Amino acid sequence: MLIVMRPDATAQDIERVNDEIRRRGWQPHAIPGGTRTAVGITGNPGAVEPEPFRVLPGVADAVAISQPFKLVSREVKPDDTQLRIGDLTIGGSAFHVIAGPCSVESREQILSTAHAVKKAGATMLRGGAFKPRTSPYEFQGLKGDGLALLAEARQETGLLVTTEVKDTATLQAVADTTDILQIGARNMQNFSLLEAVGDLRKPVMLKRGMSATIKELLMAAEYIVARGNTQVILCERGIRTFETMTRNTLDLNAVPMLKALSHLPVFVDPSHGIGVRKAVPAMMRAATAVGADGIIVEVHPDPPRAKSDGAQSLDFSEFEKSMNEVRAIAQAMGREVVRLG
Amino acid sequence: MLIVMRPDATAQDIERVNDEIRRRGWQPHAIPGGTRTAVGITGNPGAVEPEPFRVLPGVADAVAISQPFKLVSREVKPDDTQLRIGDLTIGGSAFHVIAGPCSVESREQILSTAHAVKKAGATMLRGGAFKPRTSPYEFQGLKGDGLALLAEARQETGLLVTTEVKDTATLQAVADTTDILQIGARNMQNFSLLEAVGDLRKPVMLKRGMSATIKELLMAAEYIVARGNTQVILCERGIRTFETMTRNTLDLNAVPMLKALSHLPVFVDPSHGIGVRKAVPAMMRAATAVGADGIIVEVHPDPPRAKSDGAQSLDFSEFEKSMNEVRAIAQAMGREVVRLG
Amino acid sequence: MLIVMRPDATAQDIERVNDEIRRRGWQPHAIPGGTRTAVGITGNPGAVEPEPFRVLPGVADAVAISQPFKLVSREVKPDDTQLRIGDLTIGGSAFHVIAGPCSVESREQILSTAHAVKKAGATMLRGGAFKPRTSPYEFQGLKGDGLALLAEARQETGLLVTTEVKDTATLQAVADTTDILQIGARNMQNFSLLEAVGDLRKPVMLKRGMSATIKELLMAAEYIVARGNTQVILCERGIRTFETMTRNTLDLNAVPMLKALSHLPVFVDPSHGIGVRKAVPAMMRAATAVGADGIIVEVHPDPPRAKSDGAQSLDFSEFEKSMNEVRAIAQAMGREVVRLG
Amino acid sequence: MLIVMRPDATAQDIERVNDEIRRRGWQPHAIPGGTRTAVGITGNPGAVEPEPFRVLPGVADAVAISQPFKLVSREVKPDDTQLRIGDLTIGGSAFHVIAGPCSVESREQILSTAHAVKKAGATMLRGGAFKPRTSPYEFQGLKGDGLALLAEARQETGLLVTTEVKDTATLQAVADTTDILQIGARNMQNFSLLEAVGDLRKPVMLKRGMSATIKELLMAAEYIVARGNTQVILCERGIRTFETMTRNTLDLNAVPMLKALSHLPVFVDPSHGIGVRKAVPAMMRAATAVGADGIIVEVHPDPPRAKSDGAQSLDFSEFEKSMNEVRAIAQAMGREVVRLG
Repeated sequence: MLIVMRPDATAQDIERVNDEIRRRGWQPHAIPGGTRTAVGITGNPGAVEPEPFRVLPGVADAVAISQPFKLVSREVKPDDTQLRIGDLTIGGSAFHVIAGPCSVESREQILSTAHAVKKAGATMLRGGAFKPRTSPYEFQGLKGDGLALLAEARQETGLLVTTEVKDTATLQAVADTTDILQIGARNMQNFSLLEAVGDLRKPVMLKRGMSATIKELLMAAEYIVARGNTQVILCERGIRTFETMTRNTLDLNAVPMLKALSHLPVFVDPSHGIGVRKAVPAMMRAATAVGADGIIVEVHPDPPRAKSDGAQSLDFSEFEKSMNEVRAIAQAMGREVVRLG
Repeated sequence: MLIVMRPDATAQDIERVNDEIRRRGWQPHAIPGGTRTAVGITGNPGAVEPEPFRVLPGVADAVAISQPFKLVSREVKPDDTQLRIGDLTIGGSAFHVIAGPCSVESREQILSTAHAVKKAGATMLRGGAFKPRTSPYEFQGLKGDGLALLAEARQETGLLVTTEVKDTATLQAVADTTDILQIGARNMQNFSLLEAVGDLRKPVMLKRGMSATIKELLMAAEYIVARGNTQVILCERGIRTFETMTRNTLDLNAVPMLKALSHLPVFVDPSHGIGVRKAVPAMMRAATAVGADGIIVEVHPDPPRAKSDGAQSLDFSEFEKSMNEVRAIAQAMGREVVRLG
Repeated sequence: MLIVMRPDATAQDIERVNDEIRRRGWQPHAIPGGTRTAVGITGNPGAVEPEPFRVLPGVADAVAISQPFKLVSREVKPDDTQLRIGDLTIGGSAFHVIAGPCSVESREQILSTAHAVKKAGATMLRGGAFKPRTSPYEFQGLKGDGLALLAEARQETGLLVTTEVKDTATLQAVADTTDILQIGARNMQNFSLLEAVGDLRKPVMLKRGMSATIKELLMAAEYIVARGNTQVILCERGIRTFETMTRNTLDLNAVPMLKALSHLPVFVDPSHGIGVRKAVPAMMRAATAVGADGIIVEVHPDPPRAKSDGAQSLDFSEFEKSMNEVRAIAQAMGREVVRLG
Repeated sequence: MLIVMRPDATAQDIERVNDEIRRRGWQPHAIPGGTRTAVGITGNPGAVEPEPFRVLPGVADAVAISQPFKLVSREVKPDDTQLRIGDLTIGGSAFHVIAGPCSVESREQILSTAHAVKKAGATMLRGGAFKPRTSPYEFQGLKGDGLALLAEARQETGLLVTTEVKDTATLQAVADTTDILQIGARNMQNFSLLEAVGDLRKPVMLKRGMSATIKELLMAAEYIVARGNTQVILCERGIRTFETMTRNTLDLNAVPMLKALSHLPVFVDPSHGIGVRKAVPAMMRAATAVGADGIIVEVHPDPPRAKSDGAQSLDFSEFEKSMNEVRAIAQAMGREVVRLG
């Protein structure tokens, strides 16, 4: 159930609605929009009677929500959510490119990459510090040292920084350092971690699990938003199918579906999505054309020598060349690829 | 094994190579390229000794082919294959849009659609006459009458015509009427049908089976080319995955992979690929940006009343609007969306 | 719609029902059961009014069918279909084992295998003569010579014989030689071939396509039964999933689902299903325990030297050992593994 | 690398080997077998030279391990691992049935179920206290109260108890109460949780992720064993495929593959595997026949009223009937379904 307030409703009107919801033992969630506020209800065991709400002052309507996800649904909030991070806005007509290595490996590696991707037009730097790996014997990241190097790279270049948070134990340290927290594909249904980032007030990029449906991705985002953290970016990064020639199957179909169902921004990770270096530029172009709000791309000074994901990382000149293509397509779409000043 | 001839090799030199191949009980396949001819060998039970060929007059080199597909491989023919159909060229910098209804339903329906899609910028008309359907109780197409209506639409508009061939029994009738034969996803490994179209000298659009790997699609194309019909267009049309919100999962990843592995032109079918009308335009844009040589789109005068595939068909105005987007992206890619005069 | 006749209905009563159905332009399908006959209706464009049929003499009831498949549905025919082939009955409490090589390779190979599998307890011999192969350059079978060798093996051993029919062109030759026609996984939705075998009056084993849903398998069977050939055996043979360690994923879940939805007998092909020789015996046991009516197993005198499917074929002693396990489990299930006299 | 000790090697010999391994900065893992001990090496960056180990006293051989998983591999430990829990042994010829509700819902529900499943022949009780749910608005379990009720049920019936551990925050509480810790499918690659249970010395049942390969399941188990907890049971519980008629696709193929590759016991969860109540008994039988060491089944006093998974839970009489079938098949396999005294 969604209580839609009138454009001229007062803060007092909204609080009155909240009280009525709480009085029934449920939780109200205020959802500010462009011209008016709506109040979502969660915690209700079944259908909610609309009449008692429709008669309250300032209430325009009370409408049923047909989707199992509520707060992330476009039914609840028709206009696009835009995130404000530092001086940047994510969502709307802006298109952002996040770039950087799979793992932070050394000071020189991360700093040289930061400068190169900034020059080519990225606004944010990616780089893993705590790495979830299939094998316990593989490189697990530089951990705290990696975070410190990311902070230094931000300091030097002005790029915003994003890195994956692997568990609740390291969440605070990661949150203190980065501008956007990444939840990786393997953790998309780690509900305890989702709740923990939901309790923060920091942007989160939530990656689709490798066998998660589009609906499950939205339900996972709902876990975060239901705790009050509304700054969520959805990210398509490839699903697992029968095809073995590509590492995953980047499911660009998810982008228009997610945009139709949800007001949250949607990014695409072409690097993990196809997992084949020479084919990444084609998927960067397609992700731009399909209507994503940004892409996140793996770039490394020397891909064949990368400690992880070398097979899918671009080198600096490949990235620069691809950025030109991305810019041309974004322009054809009426969007602007944002650059740092 | 591929025998690469020198640029100045004579027809006699090539024939000499063919003779040597046939003498061993194998088949030669001449593959003309931009500056020189190569001769592929099939039918050899194991590895071929290169030396006896390298010493023949006009032979530049004899190289082993590492892929199980040979004649369709870019190893065998590095430059893109371009198909000449009527006045049109498929492949190269040209980008083509094929459009029309799932099924030919009536004279008025197919003629009005043909005029509308031509006006919007399509060069070819699609429309099913013999329809393979999951249920024996569903509409199976107008059959011969459908072919006649397609011929009439071509006559009236100048659009080239493509329709699906369902079996060997109706192959000749379909081949007599259409400019491009379509092999549907369910028939991608109907090897007897592949051999039969391989014996014709007519362009074939081969659609990827819904659980076929990229390699299997190329092997299926090899069946056609091995019989001497080199005019093959590959078509990605969506694969079957766990996701149920979309009808199929359009696998755009296949496009750069196919272009890297094969010299054949690659088309994309966004309509079957995603199967959701409102999301088809996004996939048309993405298919253009990913590097396909064309798209094939379902368009119907009144989608909700279509006898088949109404849920994924665009109406005339949606198609026209999408064509503008496709043109803008093709232009950003340095490609031209071909129009009829 | 299903017209259920009373137990004491006469042939004349049934004919009267058929006439009423035909008079409306639809097709009646008499479905004889243990104690009474039912008449299925196909060809009706929408829902059928039950009243005009309920008042006819000998009619017990007229009931709507909720599944898209009709004639193969257990709603239409609650008791199990049993096939009578020669002296053997398939279905009911009988459990049958079909065994033999992937391909007929030579007289000695097929005869020695026939004797060995008969001795171990098989009632039927399998062996491919016309082989659909992914590559045009692989062994395509001995064709007519293979059929002749299968006939000789039947003559010598008394085993029934089954082989795959690949296309309509070779259907008659295959039908003349074999006791059960196999439709392979790649042809499950080759509707023209399904219609052609539907016009015969000969048992057909229909294998599930590698990405076919359970419902699509039943719809494919409906194509055959709707043409009047009711002697259909369904066969689960493994589906395509993301797992690569096994050739396919044998989906034993399909067996109880098919048995619940349909009255047709269900077989399982553990050899193609898992595709790993050392694991085939485990899947033979599981297929027996899950409730299949029989299994079809690849056996070869010398698997490492087989021309096809050697990696999944048992040798004679492995097969004999596995048969003992299958018998023990069938007995625990209250079923008998049928042997030839 | 695996250092295989001679049967007469002393504790001192083994310690000497450990020292040599540690001196190089690697970790030794002693793996006691029936007649001799082997020492696995992890932490080595590349291949290990065998010679320096072969010359040490008590060493029989030093052999390379070809699989990426080491400690869980049958290469490292050829004989089956048997777990001793209370008076029970898991693995070997024993076959165990774990049964109980999806969620602990009330004192009466869990106690009545415990008595019923014990009477029918289960040795262990399952029941969820901390429930990971796709939606934040669904029932999340009784948490601590649920654990207390499980403890009471164990006290009353003597059944061992197993429940899922959802995160590291609640791990200690769950470990204090239960005999076997379950890691659910969504947490199979929650590496921080795997490491935490690896630091305990308590049996762990590790469920296969819904899109995890067999190899990835073994790598996840390796995370636990590499921390010193060798008491791991693998559990197949259904994978995600294109089929929608069943909740998941129970992949019984995984059982013989896991048994061939690993020495760990393997259980099967037919309830989540197929997710259809009426079909669960067939999958219980198949899981027994395929060679699993036990099954874990959902049983509820009144399935249609269950707070979760009612659609796949058996009632008491269905479970009792199925247990008779399981016993008959286990006996045919030469295995005994263990009962409490």
